[in-house]
Parts: sequence; structure tokens; C-alpha cells
Amino acid sequence: MTRKIRAGIVGGTGYTGVELLRLLLQHPAVELAVITSRKESGTPVERIFGSLRGRLDLRFTDPDDPALRSCELVFFATPHGVAMGQARELLAAGVRIIDLAADFRLRDPAQFAAWYKMPHACPDLLAEAVYGLPELGRDAVRRARIVGLPGCYPTSIQLGLAPVLELERARPGAIDVAGIIADCKSGVSGAGRKAEIDLLAAEVAENFRAYGLGGHRHHPETVQQLEALAGCPVGLTFIPHLVPMIRGIFSTLYVRLRAAAALDLQALYEKRYAGEPFVDVMPAGSAPETRSVRGTNQVRIALLRPAPELLTVLVVEDNLVKGAAGQAVQCMNLMFERPETEGLRLLATVP
Amino acid sequence: MTRKIRAGIVGGTGYTGVELLRLLLQHPAVELAVITSRKESGTPVERIFGSLRGRLDLRFTDPDDPALRSCELVFFATPHGVAMGQARELLAAGVRIIDLAADFRLRDPAQFAAWYKMPHACPDLLAEAVYGLPELGRDAVRRARIVGLPGCYPTSIQLGLAPVLELERARPGAIDVAGIIADCKSGVSGAGRKAEIDLLAAEVAENFRAYGLGGHRHHPETVQQLEALAGCPVGLTFIPHLVPMIRGIFSTLYVRLRAAAALDLQALYEKRYAGEPFVDVMPAGSAPETRSVRGTNQVRIALLRPAPELLTVLVVEDNLVKGAAGQAVQCMNLMFERPETEGLRLLATVP
Amino acid sequence: MTRKIRAGIVGGTGYTGVELLRLLLQHPAVELAVITSRKESGTPVERIFGSLRGRLDLRFTDPDDPALRSCELVFFATPHGVAMGQARELLAAGVRIIDLAADFRLRDPAQFAAWYKMPHACPDLLAEAVYGLPELGRDAVRRARIVGLPGCYPTSIQLGLAPVLELERARPGAIDVAGIIADCKSGVSGAGRKAEIDLLAAEVAENFRAYGLGGHRHHPETVQQLEALAGCPVGLTFIPHLVPMIRGIFSTLYVRLRAAAALDLQALYEKRYAGEPFVDVMPAGSAPETRSVRGTNQVRIALLRPAPELLTVLVVEDNLVKGAAGQAVQCMNLMFERPETEGLRLLATVP
Amino acid sequence: MTRKIRAGIVGGTGYTGVELLRLLLQHPAVELAVITSRKESGTPVERIFGSLRGRLDLRFTDPDDPALRSCELVFFATPHGVAMGQARELLAAGVRIIDLAADFRLRDPAQFAAWYKMPHACPDLLAEAVYGLPELGRDAVRRARIVGLPGCYPTSIQLGLAPVLELERARPGAIDVAGIIADCKSGVSGAGRKAEIDLLAAEVAENFRAYGLGGHRHHPETVQQLEALAGCPVGLTFIPHLVPMIRGIFSTLYVRLRAAAALDLQALYEKRYAGEPFVDVMPAGSAPETRSVRGTNQVRIALLRPAPELLTVLVVEDNLVKGAAGQAVQCMNLMFERPETEGLRLLATVP
Repeated sequence: MTRKIRAGIVGGTGYTGVELLRLLLQHPAVELAVITSRKESGTPVERIFGSLRGRLDLRFTDPDDPALRSCELVFFATPHGVAMGQARELLAAGVRIIDLAADFRLRDPAQFAAWYKMPHACPDLLAEAVYGLPELGRDAVRRARIVGLPGCYPTSIQLGLAPVLELERARPGAIDVAGIIADCKSGVSGAGRKAEIDLLAAEVAENFRAYGLGGHRHHPETVQQLEALAGCPVGLTFIPHLVPMIRGIFSTLYVRLRAAAALDLQALYEKRYAGEPFVDVMPAGSAPETRSVRGTNQVRIALLRPAPELLTVLVVEDNLVKGAAGQAVQCMNLMFERPETEGLRLLATVP
Repeated sequence: MTRKIRAGIVGGTGYTGVELLRLLLQHPAVELAVITSRKESGTPVERIFGSLRGRLDLRFTDPDDPALRSCELVFFATPHGVAMGQARELLAAGVRIIDLAADFRLRDPAQFAAWYKMPHACPDLLAEAVYGLPELGRDAVRRARIVGLPGCYPTSIQLGLAPVLELERARPGAIDVAGIIADCKSGVSGAGRKAEIDLLAAEVAENFRAYGLGGHRHHPETVQQLEALAGCPVGLTFIPHLVPMIRGIFSTLYVRLRAAAALDLQALYEKRYAGEPFVDVMPAGSAPETRSVRGTNQVRIALLRPAPELLTVLVVEDNLVKGAAGQAVQCMNLMFERPETEGLRLLATVP
Repeated sequence: MTRKIRAGIVGGTGYTGVELLRLLLQHPAVELAVITSRKESGTPVERIFGSLRGRLDLRFTDPDDPALRSCELVFFATPHGVAMGQARELLAAGVRIIDLAADFRLRDPAQFAAWYKMPHACPDLLAEAVYGLPELGRDAVRRARIVGLPGCYPTSIQLGLAPVLELERARPGAIDVAGIIADCKSGVSGAGRKAEIDLLAAEVAENFRAYGLGGHRHHPETVQQLEALAGCPVGLTFIPHLVPMIRGIFSTLYVRLRAAAALDLQALYEKRYAGEPFVDVMPAGSAPETRSVRGTNQVRIALLRPAPELLTVLVVEDNLVKGAAGQAVQCMNLMFERPETEGLRLLATVP
Repeated sequence: MTRKIRAGIVGGTGYTGVELLRLLLQHPAVELAVITSRKESGTPVERIFGSLRGRLDLRFTDPDDPALRSCELVFFATPHGVAMGQARELLAAGVRIIDLAADFRLRDPAQFAAWYKMPHACPDLLAEAVYGLPELGRDAVRRARIVGLPGCYPTSIQLGLAPVLELERARPGAIDVAGIIADCKSGVSGAGRKAEIDLLAAEVAENFRAYGLGGHRHHPETVQQLEALAGCPVGLTFIPHLVPMIRGIFSTLYVRLRAAAALDLQALYEKRYAGEPFVDVMPAGSAPETRSVRGTNQVRIALLRPAPELLTVLVVEDNLVKGAAGQAVQCMNLMFERPETEGLRLLATVP
């Protein structure tokens, strides 16, 4: 019989929280020991999430529940700024941490402070934290005590660009790194379970709009990572749009080609992601669709060459799975030496 | 040239408020003089409602803006309890009032207090107020100083049942008045522009649910009016459901027939509503759809006789127009001796 | 290692077909040997259903693929009239059959002919066929060679009414069996994957309508089964409505109580369904929602007593799972002596 | 009293047809004399479009109805290839023509043949035809006998780019004309009222996808017009995406700046479109949304400068109004010397 990973969730009432619940309850090697919620402390979890009725016998507890310290792993599905406040104590108790918020994404504490309007509580831990995108750094995740999980948009952009950026690193001049465009579209669950007018059904349905034009917090994070991949400064224009649907990110990426214009980029991508269980490079000319990955940890990528010197990369992911909770479980599997796809082989519900 | 009605709106940032704006700006005989909003005082209206950019040059003002007293008519598109607090002063200044909230719907102040959890501020004015459903009391509306506009559900239920209830009044025993069922479905805008988790797009989309099962405030209002129509006690079961769409109410009404089982009810309805510009009795066997009245003041009704002793009435309306702002404009037209359909002949945008 | 059930699907390109694929591919004890499609014969399955890319290596074959005869079980996810044409030959080859269409639902061949506009091809097999609703006849399903799977609406109505109908059978006079009302609402996938104007996104979105008012094919099926439960004639009014969403059925059932008015019906339902893994009787006063069962084989039921002599039963199911493919898998589990819930423990994806 | 324009519609059962109906019925200076439909000939129009019940007393007639020749103006809301077949005869009868399909958009008959898979029936008339985008050629429209109305995407792209392309024409080197990107998103009504699987509600809802990646017919049309504006070859990458909503186009345009990088482009746009009733240049930093123009002939444009040498132009329009029927009415107003905005001042229905 499988030994189970004893896990806890801090902040279980948001969309990433309930998605973690859905995945962990269907994971054969996890024992969910504790789930906290400041607001719902004492309430049975299934009362808040009716879809879980009869499937777990757990109540929300206080955010400082000492049971967290008895876990091997704690997920933070909390607003930005919470995980960094509790991390040191948990680490001291031998607990490993995966933060689904932004506390451990940006390498530079000053940049964190600038974008998130608060000083970083533990810059030393930041230095230790691992950016949790397994396809781009699997070994570091395996060994990590603290994982800062990527944002949903950054995951799709990085996976869509990694092969050409790595090419640029190997052979500078392959692409125009200064002028990358990411025209991204997201379903509304990406904004979280927050009581805001802009997120009401009557505001979102039958409407399409751009947002975050003054600067989106996923921008510095993405640039940091793209630069690490390319080994040089990268200029990224990132325009997020809101789609009237619940789940799904569709990123349309535009890369000007220089020397790479002469290469078979389809082959490059296929080779780069061969063997990656969660990255599907579709045949040339394919048109991916978000529903094909809904509820799953899958990313699908299609390439297009609309002009000789332009590469268009189309990427789809589920923002709550590969863009959040699923990626967290994938990291957990690596950290605890489980098969990487364990608990993550769910098929999309289509239609 | 038409003399214009000088009108004001109190509480213009909700969905009934912006719908009033849309209708009044397209009405040839209205001058919109003032629109208030506690929260947005000072803000140009078009900044909140981008669809109005370039179409009005007005800023929100404070709720106690003295300019309200210079109006001939003030609409209250406010939460329950606001209109009754300002009514006396405005009436004293010669202003007539149409309240889109519930302050002047229930005849009995005790019932108001029980359902709305506040004492009624002016029971004497309540006695004077007219229930603003022109098809069921046109003359009273013409003369009214204070109109309490019906709720959205009650409008559809009353118009759907009036012919058989009036029949019952004329010939007791026509129907089973004790066992009427109203299975109603509404788009989410009926819940208002409120920052609540339950109204988020990610909660409402791809979901259908019942709500208000512990007792909905439209229940006592509807019963009050049905009893007035029938001239006797009425037993009403009212089950509201939430539809993942923005606008529209669909009420499926079930009436057990007694003596009326022998009558041609299609003819009864057609005769009752002949000449009513906003009530369309469709041919027998029709299936109305909410989009056919979207954005319009129209109600469509279809009858079905699924069994010899059962009448099913299907009613569609736009909850924000005939269920709120459009009905308000219709009442205004009557109160100010304008053609009843003026400004209300807009066609539905389909698809 | 588990011995696998060798299964085939006839007609795999519709919505019930792809849903069967989703469930069978995640079922630990099934080997999907063949899947046919007249139109897509020769095409890899994953090319039609992109969500399955990389998860199965199978092509559609012709509907008369002899490989079907080598299966232990064949599912028909075809239009009405197909299964009855192929059944005899497959049975002769020792194959058991589950038909997701209507060929084996109605007991009376004349009724089948009247509603489906074709004579029944094998009335003798009809006599043998078992109605596949395990909660109301588990043993018969276990032994069946041919299962006629219930329609989606009938499943929700029968499960919602069975406890009071069984009560009526035991104690005649418990309820008014002549006047039952089923006000049902369904997502659009219930209409199938058919190229029809009425099912277009631009027709369905932001719209709510009734349909099938001239008589819906699920009506005679439902009455047949309700009468079997009650042991007497039943009068049912059934009004289906179309909800602008993909999946989900919400049935609001109204039952007039006679002697049963004195009983604790909540207790009756809880007792009746105690131990049923797929029927959840919610606490009194609950409001079920369709998303809580989306993608799952679960049914949730809530009771309401809006008046002393009226019972309202609210039932939610996923029309493609418990209303079709999931119920088929549940029957398969019984027929092949597998645990009844095997492969059917998936959690709903919420939001 | 206004003399009315006697108008006809060929092909009135599609989405552009019913939108024309909606607009023309609300236009004070139009008499709709005839509307044809091959399929629905003889059927009252209001039976097909329930939203028009009681508002017009007209039946569909045959496509070759001689009454068309008695009109002053005939709109073709037909599939590609129909208008060019009937144009000569109507022109001979003194009828002016506005084609909402593609027959008179492309200047080059060979290009038409290549993209629409049929030879052009009247290349001589093509030479005479005027491209009906008033903001970019008002006088030609006024005098036209034949108007080829722009496609929905091309309208948004041209209006979004005209100011910088005209700048390029005046001062070559202002922008990089070889590398323009149009990342466009459309609601599903843009695909028309066609019974196709891909357009079903269950396929479109909760899904976002790219399409037309092998080459979209709006591409050559757009390039033709952009080149006319710029006075030089233009390289355009055009990626259309399908949004799960009914109406609306959102075009995100990316233009690399050369000399123009030094200019105040916000001022350039505001000046270019000052006085244009249907083009709203929003304040810098604004985020337009499709619903703000839903049902209206308005275009809204916002500029963004995400990097010194990049201009992003965000454009919203209603694909069925400014992208089709509304633009047709605007052209009609010009052709018949009516005020350009007549019948086109409808406000968007929001929410």
C-alpha cells in the first residue's frame, strides 16, 4: 500500500483552493490532513463546495492551525503576502511549501515590493525558493523546500517560447528578443473568487475586453523567466484580455525570426517537448482550443508561420490546473518522488 | 416642439439605473436633469457606463442634490428603503415619484417591515401609492403622485394570470385559486449590480440553480396583487431559478382549472389583451423565448393545455425593461399624458 | 491484474459517444476494442476529439465492423433505430448490449412506432430488454443481455419521484398521482451533436425558452416507468426548457400530497436512498445546482414543502453522465460484476 | 413628412438580414417594400423572427421577386456570389445596390476567383463598385450605384490603422508597414446563421480558439485596403479567434513605429476622427469593451504604447452593425442624402 503524503492547504476557499481539493482528493498518494480558512473556520468543507458532498470529512480550521506543522507539505492558496509570513515557521518544523501566490516568484525583493505594494518578509528564503515550472527546471523542483508556483499567464508564455529562447541562448541572433508580443486571453476564474463588480456575470458575459493595460503583475515575472531562458534581456509586450468563459488561457505569441527563420521550428518544438507528459506539440497548422485542456494539466502548443520572418505560437492551458493547482500537484509529485503524472491523468470534459 | 418632462434619477449606478438612462436618453420628451450616486458623486456618468460615451454630459451628484426638487418626476433606482426616506420632501416640492424598489409595493406596512427588515418610514404615503402595472390599473397610474413599481417576477406572474383571475372574480369556481404554481427563471441582472460571490461569472456561468427557497420577497407582493385580481385568497407556490444569462424572465405558470376547463382560454387571453401594446398573446402552441423581448418593454404570453384540467401559461419579459425601467417609463408616459408607447418601441437585438 | 471487459462503441462521434470514451478510457477494467462511425470511418479518434490527443490509439471503423462481435459488450451511442437493427446478430455472437438511444426503452412496440415514426425491428428482444436505471432495478440489470438506457429527463424525474410513488403503491391515496408536474430544464448538449440552426451558439446563448410543447418523446417513457413504480395510472405534465449552458438537467417536480402530507418525506427519501452511491438526498432546505454534478454520475435531490399539501422535489444530474454515458458504465459494472462505482468516482470540475 | 426610401432585402433570413430588418424598421425614412428568401418564401417574416412580432406585415418572397426592381435600393444579405448574379438586372432597372457579402469587395477579379472559388460574374461592375467604408471614402459612397460593404474584421482593422497608414503615405518611413499584426477576436454571429457543428452552442460555449489559420478571406480584402491607405505594400499577419459570445469584434493591432515613434499618436487619432459620429477615440489608457458598442454602429478605439517603438491599437465594434448592417444603413443614408446618423443612434443595451 502506498505511503501517503500528509498535506495541508492554507486558504482553501478560493478557486485555486477548491481546485487543489479536487485534485488531491483524486490523488492516490495524498492524505489531506488540514485545510484552513480564516472566514470559514469551523465550517465543513462540503458545505462551501457542494460538488464535494460525501467525498471528504473535513472542516476548515484557523490559518494558524498547529496541524499544519505536522504536514510534510503545505500548499498556500492564499492572497499574495500570506505564505511569506508563515513560511519560516513551517520550514523550521520540517514542512515543505508550495505557494500558489506570488510571494516566491520574483527573484528580486525590490521588484516584489514595487509590484505587490508590500516589503518582502523573508528575502533570505526568496533566495532559496525554486520557481515551480517542472518542464523548465525539473531537478530544482525535486529538491526544493520552497516552491514559488508560476502565474497562469507566465506558464503559458514560457512554455510557448522556451524552445526559441533556448535556441537564442545557444545561438544569439536566432530571434528578435527585444520585440516579443504575448496577446493573451483568459477565462474569468483567473481573477479569483473575489466579490468585485467587474467579475459579475452580468458584466463578464457577452463581453470581451482588454485589462491590466497599465501593467500586469505577471509581466515582471514573465520577463524574469524569459531572460533566464534566453540568457539576455528580453522585450515583452503583454496584453491580457478577459474572455466570457470560466476556465482557460489562450496565448497567441508573436516572435520575429532572424537566423531562426531558416530552421524547422516545428521539429525544434517537437524535439524539445518529446517525452514531456503535459506538453503536446500539435501538428503544424493545428488550431488548439481551450476546452481540449479544461480541467486537465495539459498544455497544447501549435506553431504557425504567417510570414517567413514571423513565428506565431498558440498555447492553451487551464489556468486553474496547469496554471495553478495542477502544476502544484505536479511539483508535489516531483518533490516526494512520486510518478510525475500521478493524479493528473484526468481527461477534459468535452463538451 | 415637444415640451420635455424634467426628470431626475436617484441612484443611477445600478442595473435599473443604467437601463433608465438608456431609455430616457432615447425618449423624445424627457430632459434628464439630474442623476445621483452616493458613491460616484462628481464622476461623469459616461465614465461609469462606457456605452453612453458621447451621449450625455452629466455628472453624478449627491443623493440629496437640491436639483431633484426642481424636477417634475424623480425615479428611485435605489436599494429598498431609500425612496420612502426622501419621498415626503419631494412630494412637498411638487415632484412626482416612481420607485423601482419595494418601498411602495406592499399595502401593509407590517408586511413591509417583516420582509424588508425595517419599519416603513411613511405609512400614510403608502396608502396613497399606486401599484405601477398599467395593464392592470392604467387610470390610477395616470393620476398617481407616487408609483410603487412592481418587481420583475410579479409583473410576469400577474400578466400571465390576470385573465383567469379576473374570470374567477366574475365567476367564482372557475379555477383552483388555492394551488397556483409559478416556476420562474431569471437572468442574473435581476439580482442587481452587487459585489457578491454568488453573482460572479465563474459561479453563474454553466450552472442552473434554484434560490430563495426560504421565501422570496416577491412572494407577498405577488400574492397581494393576485388576490386583488381574484377577489379572494390565493395560494401561490413560487420557485425562482437562476439562469446563466444576463437578462430575461421566463415564468411557467400552472393553474388547475375547474369550471374554466370548458372555456376557450386562448380566446379569453386574446380578448383581454387586445389593444395592449406591450402584451402579445401568441398563437396557441407557441413557445416564447426570452431573447424575443430582450431590451424591450414587451411581454409575450403563450398558453398550453397539457391536460384537460390544467392550464400552463408561459410568460417572457425583460426583467430590466418591462420588469423595471421600461415599466417606469410606461408609467411616466401615462402620468404626463404622453403616448403610452413613446420611447418604448425599441426592437430586440436578436441574435 | 484485473481482467478487462472487452467493449465496443457503435456511433462514437456524438456527445454521448465522446462521453463514453472519456469514462471508459479512465475505467481500470475496460479495454476499448472498437469504435465505429459511418462518417468518420478510418479517422483517428483523437483527430475528432482533440481532448483525447495522446490518450488512445484507435481509429473509427465501419458500423458493421466484425470486431464488434468479438466484444463482450457493445454500447450503442447512435440515433434511435440503429441498435435494434444490429442487436440480434450481436446477441447471437454472445455480445451483451447497452443502447443509449430509445430502441429498448418503451415496452410497447406500438408506442415505439408512434413516437419514433418507425416500426420496431425486434419486438421479441424488446420483451427481454431491461430498463437500465440501477437504483430502481439493480438485479435485472445485472442479468440483462440487452439494456435500454433511460433518457436523461426520465432519469431525473424517476429518481425524484420514486420514493413517493413507491409509497403510493404501498398505501394508495398517499399522493395525487393524476396531477404530477415536471418542470424540467436542460443544457443544450441534451439535444445532441446535430447541425441544426436551433442549436447554434448565437441562438442558444442569452436565451431561455420552452420547447417540445407538442409532445416530447421522453413523456411516454417517463409515464411508463412512473406507472410501474406507482402501480396505477399516473398523470404527468412535462414541460422541458432549454438553458443556455452545455450540461446539466434541473427538474423541478410538483406533487400534491394527500395522506402523505402527514409524513416526514425528508426521512422517507433519506431512507430510500441510503446506501445509494449516486443519489445524494440533501438536507432539507438545500438548493441543488447543476454544476455540483457536472461531469459526474451523481444525482442530487432536495425536498421542499412550499405548502402543507405540496411537495416540491428539486433534482440535478449531468444529462451526459447519469443521464447517458455514466449510467451506461454503471450498468456495465453491474453486468460484469465490477464494483458499481468503478470508474465513476470523478469529482465535478467547479468552477 | 419625410419621403421614404423604397428598399428591398435579398436574403433576409441570415444574421445580417435580420439585423438590417431591425435597423430599417426603426429608421424613419425607409419603406421596406420587399424581403426575399429562397427557403422561406411565403412565410410571414415575424414567424421566423419572433422578436419582430407585431412590427411588420411582410412575407418573404422569391429571390427573383419583380418587386425588387421597383425599389430604389436593394441590400444583398446573401451568401457570396448571389449579388453579382442579380446586380446587372437591378442596375438596369435603376436600382442601387449594397452588397453585404464579398462580391464587390476585392478589386481584382482573379483574387475574387481564387479566394471564393468561383469566377466573378461581372468584372465590369466590379470596376465601378465602391468600397463602403464611409469614414475612409465618404464621397464615393454618396455617388455609388454599387457598394461592396467591407467585411466585419476589415472594418475594425482599417479604422484602427488608417491614421498611421495615412501618416505613412504622407511621410514614408513613419511605421514598419511590412510587419503589422492584427490579433482579432469575434463573437460567433460573425460566422453567420449556418447549421454547422462547429457553431453549435455546445461547441462554442466555454471555449476559446483560433481558426482560419490556413488563410481567412478577410485577409486579401484588408491588405488591399491597407495598401490603398498607405500607398505602398503592406505586410499583415491576421489571426482570427472565436470568442464564446454572440456579438462583438475586438481587434488588437500591433504596429512597429519608426519615425512615428516621436509623435503624439493619441493626438493624431483624435484629430483624424474628430467629427466622425461613429468613431470614438477613447482617452489614452482606456480599455474598450465590446459590449459598449453592442447593437450599435459605434467603433471605439484606444491607443497604448507598451514600448517606445510599438503602438497597440484596441478596436471594438459590433460585427453585425458597424461590421455589416449598420454600415449598410450608414452608406444608404449617404447615398440618399439623409443625415448620416439617421436611424443609427441606438444605444447599446448594457448589461
